[in-house]
Formats: sequence, C-alpha cells, structure tokens
Amino acid sequence: MEPTIAELTKELAETRQLVLSGQTALNIVWTLVTGFLVMFMQAGFALVETGLTRAKNVAHTMGMNLLVYSIGVIGFWIMGFALQMGGVGALATFGNDPTLSSELVVHIGGKEFGLFGLHGFFLSPAVYTAPVAALFLFQMVFMDTAATIPTGAMAERWKFTSFVLFSFVLSAIMYPIYANWVWGGGWLSQLGHNYGLGHGHVDFAGSSVVHMVGGVAALVGAKMMGPRIGKYDRNGKAVPIPGHNIPMAVLGTFILAFGWFGFNPGSTLSGTDTHIAVIAVNTMLASASGAFGAYLYLKNRFGAPDVSMLCNGMLAGMVAITAPCAFVTAPAAIFIGLVAGVLVVVSAMFIENVLKIDDPVGASSVHGTCGAWGILSLGLFADGRYGDGWNGVPGPVRGLFYGDPSQFGAECIGLLANVVWVGAVTFLTLKAVGWLVGNRVSAGTELNGLDVPEMGMEGYSTEPLPE
Amino acid sequence: MEPTIAELTKELAETRQLVLSGQTALNIVWTLVTGFLVMFMQAGFALVETGLTRAKNVAHTMGMNLLVYSIGVIGFWIMGFALQMGGVGALATFGNDPTLSSELVVHIGGKEFGLFGLHGFFLSPAVYTAPVAALFLFQMVFMDTAATIPTGAMAERWKFTSFVLFSFVLSAIMYPIYANWVWGGGWLSQLGHNYGLGHGHVDFAGSSVVHMVGGVAALVGAKMMGPRIGKYDRNGKAVPIPGHNIPMAVLGTFILAFGWFGFNPGSTLSGTDTHIAVIAVNTMLASASGAFGAYLYLKNRFGAPDVSMLCNGMLAGMVAITAPCAFVTAPAAIFIGLVAGVLVVVSAMFIENVLKIDDPVGASSVHGTCGAWGILSLGLFADGRYGDGWNGVPGPVRGLFYGDPSQFGAECIGLLANVVWVGAVTFLTLKAVGWLVGNRVSAGTELNGLDVPEMGMEGYSTEPLPE
Amino acid sequence: MEPTIAELTKELAETRQLVLSGQTALNIVWTLVTGFLVMFMQAGFALVETGLTRAKNVAHTMGMNLLVYSIGVIGFWIMGFALQMGGVGALATFGNDPTLSSELVVHIGGKEFGLFGLHGFFLSPAVYTAPVAALFLFQMVFMDTAATIPTGAMAERWKFTSFVLFSFVLSAIMYPIYANWVWGGGWLSQLGHNYGLGHGHVDFAGSSVVHMVGGVAALVGAKMMGPRIGKYDRNGKAVPIPGHNIPMAVLGTFILAFGWFGFNPGSTLSGTDTHIAVIAVNTMLASASGAFGAYLYLKNRFGAPDVSMLCNGMLAGMVAITAPCAFVTAPAAIFIGLVAGVLVVVSAMFIENVLKIDDPVGASSVHGTCGAWGILSLGLFADGRYGDGWNGVPGPVRGLFYGDPSQFGAECIGLLANVVWVGAVTFLTLKAVGWLVGNRVSAGTELNGLDVPEMGMEGYSTEPLPE
Repeated sequence: MEPTIAELTKELAETRQLVLSGQTALNIVWTLVTGFLVMFMQAGFALVETGLTRAKNVAHTMGMNLLVYSIGVIGFWIMGFALQMGGVGALATFGNDPTLSSELVVHIGGKEFGLFGLHGFFLSPAVYTAPVAALFLFQMVFMDTAATIPTGAMAERWKFTSFVLFSFVLSAIMYPIYANWVWGGGWLSQLGHNYGLGHGHVDFAGSSVVHMVGGVAALVGAKMMGPRIGKYDRNGKAVPIPGHNIPMAVLGTFILAFGWFGFNPGSTLSGTDTHIAVIAVNTMLASASGAFGAYLYLKNRFGAPDVSMLCNGMLAGMVAITAPCAFVTAPAAIFIGLVAGVLVVVSAMFIENVLKIDDPVGASSVHGTCGAWGILSLGLFADGRYGDGWNGVPGPVRGLFYGDPSQFGAECIGLLANVVWVGAVTFLTLKAVGWLVGNRVSAGTELNGLDVPEMGMEGYSTEPLPE
Repeated sequence: MEPTIAELTKELAETRQLVLSGQTALNIVWTLVTGFLVMFMQAGFALVETGLTRAKNVAHTMGMNLLVYSIGVIGFWIMGFALQMGGVGALATFGNDPTLSSELVVHIGGKEFGLFGLHGFFLSPAVYTAPVAALFLFQMVFMDTAATIPTGAMAERWKFTSFVLFSFVLSAIMYPIYANWVWGGGWLSQLGHNYGLGHGHVDFAGSSVVHMVGGVAALVGAKMMGPRIGKYDRNGKAVPIPGHNIPMAVLGTFILAFGWFGFNPGSTLSGTDTHIAVIAVNTMLASASGAFGAYLYLKNRFGAPDVSMLCNGMLAGMVAITAPCAFVTAPAAIFIGLVAGVLVVVSAMFIENVLKIDDPVGASSVHGTCGAWGILSLGLFADGRYGDGWNGVPGPVRGLFYGDPSQFGAECIGLLANVVWVGAVTFLTLKAVGWLVGNRVSAGTELNGLDVPEMGMEGYSTEPLPE
Repeated sequence: MEPTIAELTKELAETRQLVLSGQTALNIVWTLVTGFLVMFMQAGFALVETGLTRAKNVAHTMGMNLLVYSIGVIGFWIMGFALQMGGVGALATFGNDPTLSSELVVHIGGKEFGLFGLHGFFLSPAVYTAPVAALFLFQMVFMDTAATIPTGAMAERWKFTSFVLFSFVLSAIMYPIYANWVWGGGWLSQLGHNYGLGHGHVDFAGSSVVHMVGGVAALVGAKMMGPRIGKYDRNGKAVPIPGHNIPMAVLGTFILAFGWFGFNPGSTLSGTDTHIAVIAVNTMLASASGAFGAYLYLKNRFGAPDVSMLCNGMLAGMVAITAPCAFVTAPAAIFIGLVAGVLVVVSAMFIENVLKIDDPVGASSVHGTCGAWGILSLGLFADGRYGDGWNGVPGPVRGLFYGDPSQFGAECIGLLANVVWVGAVTFLTLKAVGWLVGNRVSAGTELNGLDVPEMGMEGYSTEPLPE
C-alpha cells in the first residue's frame, strides 16, 4: 500500500536525522582518532629529548616525559579544561549539545574581552556528554604537547619535584588561559570583531597556542635554570654536549611526524570537512622541506648534515606549518617549511652562543622561534581559500600578501601576548617553586647523573653477578 | 516532471538503505582502526618486557613477543575464533550478516548454559564475509594481548619450544573458551537472565577476559617455573634484578597507552555509538591517576619514584578501567586508576616477598591483581549511564553503590571462574608441555643468557674485527 | 502544514546529497588515516635497517631513513605525482572532482599504450582540491616505502650525497612511471583491455609497484656497490656480520606490521567498501604464517630460530600478500605467507652465498623475491571474490587455479617489465651519480664507521668529561 504524504514526510525527517547523526559520529570518530595520534606524540617527545641528552640521565628524562602526561591529564581535568573551553560549550560540529557555557568577561570601552571559562571543572556528570568528552580529549593532548616541551630545555638538571609542581601550573592555568584567548572565545579571538583586525588572532592548530607556549616556557626556564655544568668553558665558549643515542632521536622524530597528522588535520574537529586532506598534505610538505632546508644549510655551512639537526629541521617545518596549514597553497607550505628548517639551526646557534642559554635539545628554537615564524607566516601567506566566518568575521582568512595587512597585525598581537603571558607566568611559577622545593639538583647529582639520586634507579642497568 | 508517490517512496527507501550502509561502513572502519591500535600493543609489550629484563636475554624476550603474535593468529584462525564467537555470528552493529552460528549448550535445572561455539573454524569461504572478518580481527588482537602477558612473567628462563606450545593452547583453547563465557553468549553472560544477577558478568573491554586470563596464567606459570637463579639469596630474601633499559620500558608504556585507546573505545564495535568519547576519556583519566598514584606512593614510601613502577602504575590504571570504562563517571575513573596505581606496587611486593614468586616484569600484578580490581570496580561504581539491555537484561548496568548488589555478585562469580579455569588449564598445559619438551632452560643457559643457546644469536652484537 | 510533492522531492534530493557527501568524507578519512599508518612505516624501516647493521654506522643509516622521506615528498611533489597519476585525475571514490587529467599515450597497432601522466606538477592551486590532496598523500607514502628499501641493501658503505641524488631520481621518475603503468592507467593496466590478458596486470596494494621496485633497486644497487669490507673471506666464503641491536629490529617489524594495516586495506581508497575487513585479515594471516614458516624452517634446518630472520619472515609474508590480499581466501593467505616465510630465508642465502651480493638487511629477498612471489600468487589464487570491472574488464579477477590462466600471464608480464625498467634505471642512475659524486665511501671511512666522516657526529655518544 502506498504511503501518505504525511508518512513520507515523517520517514524523510527520520532519515535526515539518521544522516545528521552519522555526520556527528564521523566527526567524533575523527576527533578521537586524531586525538589518539596526538597523544602518541608524548612518546616522540620522550625519545627525542632522551636521545639528545646523556645516558646518565635517561631515567630522569624519560620519567619527566612519562609523568607529564599524567600530571597534565589531572591538571586539565581539575580546572584547565574549564578555564580554556568553559566559555564555548561543545562545538557545533559535534551536533547539538545542551552543555552550558560560561566565560569571565571584562568590558573595556564598550567592548567585551573574554578572559577565561568558568564551566566544566572536574568533568562533573552534568557536563560529561560525548561531545564534551571528545573535546576534552582533543584539547588535553594539545595542552600536554605544550607541557612536555620545557622538560627538554631544562633536562639534565631539573629537580623532579620542581618539575611536577611547575607542570601542574602549566596544565591547569598557564596554557588553558592563553588557549582560551585564542580558541575558547577569549579576547585574542575577538580582535577582528572588536577592532577589525582580520579574523582576530588566527592559529589553526597551535603554532602559538601550543608550540610557543611550550617554547617560551622552555627558553625562560632554561635561562633561569642556568647552563649544565661544563656547557661553557672558562672563556664562556659553548662546548658541544652531544646526545647519547641518535636512533632514539630519529624514532622520536618519526613518531612526532606521524602524530602531527593528528595534530593539524584533526584540528578541524570534523571528518566531514574534506579540507582535512589539504591540511594533511601541507603538513607533509612543510615537514619535508624543513628537514631538507636544514640539510642544505648544514651541508653548505659545515660540510656534513648533523642528524640531530635534521630531526630538528623536520620538527621545525611542522611547528611552522601548524598555524597556517589550512590557509596556504602547496608551494607556500614548502617555503614555510624551508625557512623554518634553516631558522631552527640559526636560532639554536644564536641561543647557545649569543644568549648563552643552554637548551640541551633545542626546544626553544624548534617550538618557540619556529612557532613564531608559523604564526607570522599565516599573517603573510593566507590566500583566502579557507576560514569563511572564522571567529565570527565574514569572508575567508587572508594574509598580508593576499590583501589583508590587518590579519598580520592580529598575528603579531597574539605573538606578543604569548611572550608576555607565558614568560611572566613561567618566571613567577619557577620562582615560587624554587622557593618551595628548589629548582636545580646539586652539582654532585648533576655530575654523577640524576637517575639514581632523583629516580632511585639506573636508566641503563648492568646485570648483578650471580651468586 | 514531478515524481509520483511511488517513485518518491522507492527513492526514499534507497536513500535510507544508503544511510544504513554508511553506518555499517563507519562501524567497520572504527572496529578495524581500533583493532590496528590494539595490534600495535604487541610492540608495547615487547618493549616493556625486554626493557625490564636483562641484556643477555633480549633476543629471547623479543623473540617470544614477536612469535606470540604469529602463533596467536594461527591458533585463533584454526579454532580459537570458532570456539569463542561461533555461537553469536556477526554482531548487529555490522549490519545484517547471514553467517550461521552454533554453540554447545548444556541444560541444568531447566536453564541453558553456553560452553563454547562450534562455527567458523579456519575462516572457511562460507563464513568469510566482511562483518566476520572485522570481528575476527578485533577479537584476535584482544586474545593476543592476553597471550603475550605470560611471556613477561616467565621471561629469562622459559624454553622457547615450551613457550611455542603453551601459546598455541592459550590462543586456541584457554582464552577462547573463557571469552565465550563472557562475550560469546556463554554461561557467565547468562547469569543475569538465568539467576537475576544484574546483567550477568559484565566486562566491557576485558579486565577479566583479557587481563586476568593473561595475569593468572602469568602468576601460575611464574610459580611453576620457579625463580630466576640469584633472585633470592640464601636467606630467601628477594634480590632486585633491575631491567636493563628504562627508555625501552617507557616507550613500551606509551605504545600501550596509545593502543588502549583502541582497546577500550573500540570495544563498542561501533563508531556510530558516540559514547566512545566518554570511554576514551575515562581510559585517559585512569591511566593518569594510575601513574600518579604510583608516584605518590613511591615518593612517600621510598623517597624516589622508580620509573619502572611509574610505567606499571599507568598500565595498572588502564587495566583496571578496562572493565568499567563505559559505565562510570569521570571522578570514579580517576579513583579507580588511583587505587590501581597503589595496588600494583603493593601487589608486586607481596608476590615477590611473601609468595616468593619471581615475576620479572610484574605482569601478575599489573594484569592479574588490577584486572580483578577492575572487574570488582565495575560491580561497585557502574552508575546506570550505559548498557541498557546488556546481555538481554533490560535497564542499564548499575553497581553496588548505585543500587544493584547482584551485579557485584555476577562480577565476583566471573572472577572466580576465571581464576579456576585459567589456573587449572595453565597448570595442566605446562605440566604436559614440560613432560614433552621441558619448560625451563638449563642453569648454564640461564646464567650465560638465553640468546645464543635458544635463539642462535646475540641480541646486542659487537662488530667482528675486519681482516 | 503538509509539504507538496515538489518540496518533498527537493528535500529528498538534498538529503541524498548529504548522504553522498558523507560517503565521500568517510572515504577521505579512511584514505588519510591509512595513509598516516603507511607514513609511520618509515620509522619501521629505519629501525629494522639500523638494528640489522652495525653500531658504528647508526647515524648514517638513520640519517638516510630520515631524509629519504623528505627527499621523496619533494621529488613526488615536483613531478612524481604528475607522472604517476596525472592521467587519471582524482578517483571516483572521492566524489566528483573537476581536476583535469592528461596522459602521454603512444599508439601501436591501433591500440593505446599509456606511458606517464602530464598533470599535477607542484600541486599548483588549480589542482589542489581535497580529493587530489588525499590521493597525493596516499600515493606519496607508498612511493616512499619503495624509496627507503634500497637504503638497507646499500647500507654501511653508501656515500650520503649519492644516496640523496639517487633517491630523488627514484621518487621523481623511476617509481612514478612504473606506478603509472599499473595504477595510473598505463600500458600494464591495459593488457586485459588490449590483449584479453585477464584484467591486465593487477597488483592490489603494491607487491610489484612498491616492493619489487624497492627490491630490484636494492639488488642491483647492492651488486654495483660491492660487498662490505670483510663480508667475504679470502676464499670468497660469506662471513656473518650480525646486526647490532635485535630489539630495534623487532620494534621496527611491529611498526611495519602495524603500518601494513594501512597499506593493504587502505588501498581501496574507500572506507565504504566493507571488503577492507577481509583485506585486513588476509594481511594479518599472511604476516603470521610468514613468521611461522620462517620459524619452522630455521628450527628444522639450524636448530634455533634467528630472530632477525623471524622478522624477515613476517615482513616476507606481508610483502607477498600485498598484491593478492583482496582476491584470495583465508587458507590461501595462510599458504602464501608460509611460502614467503621459507622463501625469504632461502633467497637470502642464495643471494649471499651464490650470487655473492652483500645485502646487509636482506632487502632484496624480502621485497624483491617475495614481491615477485606475491604478484605470481595473485595470478594463481585469485578466486573471483572481488575486482569486478577492474581496469575496465568486466567480471571479477580470477587466477590460474580458478579458471583464468591469462591473468597469470598478465602478472608475469608486469613482473618482467618491473625487473627490466627498475634494473635499467637503477643501473644508469647509479652510474651517473657515481660519475658525479662517487657512490661508495673510502675504505678508511667504512672501517671506522660512516657516522663521523659522513654525518659529522657519532650515533652513540659517550659523555665528555666535565672540566
């Protein structure tokens, strides 16, 4: 028997609802899978940092990289997530979600400036829906990427207890508040709406939010910690302290490059947005030209390509493309990576030889310097292919070379805000933590290796003799 | 020209069919991708076990971890899959599948009790459809997780041939039959239907099915194998035998934590069930509080956090949340992990010092003890948010603290059945295998390392001199 | 108010469009995620090759494996992708894509023979759509798998600059042109249409396109490079040079096995084709029987199972199943892997002892010999379950044992074309590169290790003494 129009209408509405549920499901699957990839980057950081430092400290360096994940999850669960995303609720890509949102807002000159969220502490049962959980997981692993960066710069001398306390502050307060400003509806995202500066501070996947937060904290921390014993000779000249295990560093780099395919394409939070493919390829192109740029520079300048710097070159390319990955052409991605690959080498030498700051793994250069380059490059090369309506501003995102100098201005403001906020909070936190428990191990501990005194074990153990 | 009602109806039906096919496809994609992640956990186990044992046995320990995957696939292909899932056919989430199913059932007191399946041997062409293949892959990697656990507990002294034979029995018979009882429609899943004990024995992703099977076999095996030479001094006091490579153990732990995001959320077998996001976050929270619980306990008790125990703490948290991950709140997940992180340290010391059983990597504690805690915690903390109709019992799953003490009872029965079945089969199998080929290498082999005598090679080789 | 028929029709059409967009999205998500897994195989190759070679060359071996990814991306971006896929545009599974396509075609005897594509150089903005980007990423990581294979065979003596230049040629020209012949609409794919040879040369995921290209280049390269100093004694008898780190090789093997779940199932380029589950299980079965076949053979012949050969056995099984994975039954997959696991051992001994070619990691046997076996096994065992309409030929793909001997013929032709093309281009390229910069390091460099002279650093560094 033929159905009536009313029956058909009802059936069609049900079918349409099934389709929309399927889209939501695909978006959640995508966000989770890419979030898992980003989580795996923790292993990459652990390997790069441990490979590029010395054998006597491997248990300590690995221990920091392991526990920072744990600390990060707990700090973000207690309050970081609420501060960061409490103002926006669950996002539209995840379908309708009744979660409330609340943001602390100040009014200046008749305009609103969001400071941080106020909703979602402890993931209480009332907010713990599937969309909120997906958002929590993805934002958490991003935060923890930032949290693990300073452990490289302060490696081989950082007291473990100080590391624990500092990492809690980073994950619960420092990162989430800056992330709120850019991704949680805060004031940097409102620069376009409020002052006509492009689409406000745009950072697709975190050149500033993730990498500069980690990189600036790394630089300030390494400066405050002081150089490792023996890093500078009596004339103040830097002495190379090579890493103990290059295969470890290369494996870590590959794991990071693998995870970055979660980092950047996953930041759509949407598997139904097919632009993920372009984002993935831009990320791949910049990683390649980053490593190749470093190779060409090293080969020409030193005659041989130090493999640890090839690793840093690849990472530099990916850090730089993180902000602009959705907004630029393929040749621009190649160019951005190439510049980053050279920049990271130059920056590492500058920090070591001119600033006299001892950053054992080059974290400040990889994540700080190249994160800044990434943010600026978005402001230069965004070509209007993507981002229509971003941060509530109509039209796609365009950089200086494509007709919108004000977008470049918004990028610069976000960059400065990052340096000021992260620099200040890092300084104050390390001062406070140092006063509480001390930041640096004793000279004896440092010379003999941190593994036994700080972790109660050796990282590489030889066998006890049989009786 | 306007279509007729009949044409519209047909077109709508076709469209609806497309939607349903899309859902099936998403479910299969999800099941495969998460299954791949679980397969990758084999690498994690290999690294943790090898890192926590001695350099002279690395080829042997790695060789067991490599070949157990191979053995497991073959044993499961021959008969394990049929015994486990032969009674249920392909699941509804994968769409309509015409595969037949058949289960050996005994009748006691007018009630039916499933014992094992009888369909799907050798994946013959008649059953080898896409849904069956997806189910096979996912169940296979779960089984192999269990199969690889005992290799850690019996490491550094287990004869390779004995390991091969034992692993075949585990993968073809021992694991599949217990898994049938819980997941294949067998008698433990019928406890609710038959006796009103909650929803029967519920184990979302395998705290008992996977981890306790591995952990109980590990404990019984390590006891039967006896301690490594030199593990106990002449007064019977345990002597620490530290692992040779902590970075390896930490990398393995991260790989396991990465794979666990396949393990738990994948167990929905459905990407259209958005609850996967909540499951993933609960898993993350418990992994973090597991490591942090171990840190706090170790720091307070011993003054320094042994990194190998931080690894075990993280693993313990994940083992424990495996059963209840879909059924509990975020704070409960944190609590379950925290308890597991302490429990794993206490249990390891108890097994080593009181039971005098030498389990080199702590597999019995991580998977056995914390697996048991996970199963019990489901019976305590399930809050009624999920599981409506589970095992054919109406209403969601609730634990003791949320109004259903009988659910806790069903968990206890499943736990006891696990210990009895796995303990007995392990004992009998190792006895038989020992009689056939011997279980333990000679003292000389053990003292000099198993690599050359058992594997014909060194695990770490120095270079032969050039002529 | 009830809608009119016209309104319903419009709404239904929109809903249907949403469904189709969702399918495209799922296909792109699947292609990207599996592509990421394949990219991660680079880490697996790096570990296997470095683990199976000597400690004094780890920075060099790792450096080649790292930079080959970078070189490959750039070479493929410049021209490789255009040569390979420029003739087919974006594929139908990714939805309608307006990308133009263009192929260089020659006419012989009234038939068309495609030689290479002419569209898509530099991924210029005009072609850089989401479908093209997804296709680029997936094809790029396949190419780079081939590119990384020769680095193992020429390890421990290959001049780094020569490696860089050779790899550019491989990624930009050599691989893409053969891949065009099979996957890009070229003449090998037209053998069925033109001459009635089955469905033309069929290679589901690359036993010939990827593995034989890498394996033949490896064999020719290792022959031209000559054996490592000390590999053959004064009587010409091969001297074993064991790898320095078995755990590294096993980890690499697991990473490769993990990535292969992207390699084979991903080659549908479609997540809506549920046959991906069957493909994944066939891959798993052959990997297992490959390792187990090697185990049985080694155990019987030598008394102990060399773990490095167990690794190669697992890889051999996967290489072999790569071509036929979509077309064969489960028992056939087991058989194909089992044969490969034995074949790889026999082939490695033959190449080393009879051909006197020194391939340090056995790449020629794993990828060349077993790649050839894989291609032939498709021509034997394809059972007609899949591939209806493949390469424009109606009906499913059937091998010799299932009624179509001409399919076996097409496989043989593709195999021969591979050996001739890859052999010739490798020979000519290495000759040219050798003339330009030299292919082999000096004897002194080789004896002392390539790390310091070629890479300017040590791979394993001991600590400088504190002042």
